[in-house]
Amino acid sequence: MILERFKVPEKDQVLVSEAALRRTVTQIFEKLGVSPEDSAEAADVLTMTDLRGVETHGVSNMLRAYVRDYKAGKLDPRPGWKVVRESPGTAVIDAERRLGVIVGPKGMRLAMDKARRVGIGVVTVFNSGHFGAIGHYAMQAAQEDMVGVCFTGAGLSVVPTFATKPLLGTNPIALAAPARHEAPMLFDAATSAIAGNKIRLAMRVGSPLLPGWVTDKEGTPIMEEKPVFDREEIFQAPLGGTREQGSHKGYGFALMAEVLSTLLAGALPTMLVPGSGSKNHFAAYHIEAFTDLEQFKTTMDEMLKTLRTAKPMAGQERVLYPGLSEAEEVLHRRAHGIPLHKEVLQWFAECTSEMGLAPLAQ
Amino acid sequence: MILERFKVPEKDQVLVSEAALRRTVTQIFEKLGVSPEDSAEAADVLTMTDLRGVETHGVSNMLRAYVRDYKAGKLDPRPGWKVVRESPGTAVIDAERRLGVIVGPKGMRLAMDKARRVGIGVVTVFNSGHFGAIGHYAMQAAQEDMVGVCFTGAGLSVVPTFATKPLLGTNPIALAAPARHEAPMLFDAATSAIAGNKIRLAMRVGSPLLPGWVTDKEGTPIMEEKPVFDREEIFQAPLGGTREQGSHKGYGFALMAEVLSTLLAGALPTMLVPGSGSKNHFAAYHIEAFTDLEQFKTTMDEMLKTLRTAKPMAGQERVLYPGLSEAEEVLHRRAHGIPLHKEVLQWFAECTSEMGLAPLAQ
Repeated sequence: MILERFKVPEKDQVLVSEAALRRTVTQIFEKLGVSPEDSAEAADVLTMTDLRGVETHGVSNMLRAYVRDYKAGKLDPRPGWKVVRESPGTAVIDAERRLGVIVGPKGMRLAMDKARRVGIGVVTVFNSGHFGAIGHYAMQAAQEDMVGVCFTGAGLSVVPTFATKPLLGTNPIALAAPARHEAPMLFDAATSAIAGNKIRLAMRVGSPLLPGWVTDKEGTPIMEEKPVFDREEIFQAPLGGTREQGSHKGYGFALMAEVLSTLLAGALPTMLVPGSGSKNHFAAYHIEAFTDLEQFKTTMDEMLKTLRTAKPMAGQERVLYPGLSEAEEVLHRRAHGIPLHKEVLQWFAECTSEMGLAPLAQ
Repeated sequence: MILERFKVPEKDQVLVSEAALRRTVTQIFEKLGVSPEDSAEAADVLTMTDLRGVETHGVSNMLRAYVRDYKAGKLDPRPGWKVVRESPGTAVIDAERRLGVIVGPKGMRLAMDKARRVGIGVVTVFNSGHFGAIGHYAMQAAQEDMVGVCFTGAGLSVVPTFATKPLLGTNPIALAAPARHEAPMLFDAATSAIAGNKIRLAMRVGSPLLPGWVTDKEGTPIMEEKPVFDREEIFQAPLGGTREQGSHKGYGFALMAEVLSTLLAGALPTMLVPGSGSKNHFAAYHIEAFTDLEQFKTTMDEMLKTLRTAKPMAGQERVLYPGLSEAEEVLHRRAHGIPLHKEVLQWFAECTSEMGLAPLAQ
């Protein structure tokens, strides 16, 4: 769940419907030369991410970057990809500079095909653009009664424990698993103390950064709460913040994601080739290969309900499990609209006008 | 790497050779009715763990618990296990109350067999005793030129974010990957702020617990440094410590381990059946199924060397990568002996004497 400090202040909100957002985002991708089918899929990834309340990875931060990269020729809009190596349970894909939010759904579908045949499927992808919120691909598997897991190696923003400069990305890890009556478990977390996009968001809403989230330019964790006005003043810290608080574990999880995505794709990590694209790992576990699906869902329900109904500590309303507030947010936003910052609406207005598209309906 | 505060104080150390420790530990297992082959394997897991300097999970804390559980009839010493469900890439094993350090190596070997055939192999195990340091099983894969990954669901000691009582175990996650000239990457971390065994170790060496490591009995994170004399005074916090510092991520990683081990074994989590055994997940990735093995090792070397030779922050001697200090410790302890606390030697003396075995050679 997103911290209060990151929400768009109500006075700056404009509410947009799911249908309108899907329509306009699809049209923007089509104008950039992406096929109608791929455009709809990319719009689905971004819209679902905004519906889940993960606005750091929805249209607000990401779409303008994608548009810029297509226009600059950094991304290839054409359909397809190249299978570099394949086995019954695995495949490695060269995305050939296609956008991650287009390649990602196909990567997880291929992993699921393999899982149906041999119990487990793993697909790695290299040479691609940004993947958005990888929890979306894990959820694809959960929606087909599988467990989905994703790892990403991308970027160069996180300082390893005791180092003085960033050598790793925020390298997120995600897992989704289906339940019956409870909302599916959906865990999707950067292995840094805070997601990179949350820093951008904090700067936009003028919110301070908390102790242990970032380091100074010498790699020393900043332990007082302070606002940041310039990304150039800071580096990011691994989850844990300081060695004593466990930053070596956040650092280790980031390296784990790097090995499972980048190294198993036969690619080079960003620390060796700065500016190289995102590398991803999609795993699907066919639940029926492991146990009875109905028993799995019953146990998930009992476990998630135990967490959801646990007595909360003083000052808290309730205990959450990963995916609960996201599921609630989807219901709420489908009914009431998706709150976008008015500045994001301004960007949409300019973009659609320039492309000769109808404006985003409000 | 273990914090200084957890090392056995020099005045309390007794040095024991690898060969002597293997011999005596093997003999103890044999006396408990375990086959010679299984006894040697269990002794290998424990001795390697002590050689790596992970004394929290070596003979000091764990062996006496294993001996106690065999004597109480909680563990079955006989060879074997039951395959409950199997597919080309997966298997689920009922360990039928066998000890984890005996079942673990076999679980990873079965995962590797499957990985050789279909690229990836996943084996889950339920109804077993304790697995020791799961990094050991990940290392089995790395030693055969695969990437090894393990997850564990076990225990009931960690309070989910905002809850008031423990509903999860310390649920560790481990990954090992081979390099060529560099030491293999070996990451093995509890998803709690601190491993459960480290609290026992801190109590033995009289060391204080740091802010964010534990909560009070109402689930509120304790944010001052203080010594703990009674495990009953505290619960454990997830990695991150507080919500603001990212405890929801540590909590999410613990649930991830629970789903991939317990739920995919068709078992029930400890929160639903307190006292139920350890559940484990062993995954082996056949590197050749993904990319050229030699290129993989070259990239691992370049990545790990970049980390190892990075400029350290003020006050630190060097930057480590997961597995580096463990590899150095193995060399050092093979040459100079394994330091055990004199109180542990006292336990060995009583145990061997009672069993009619020769004492542990010093």
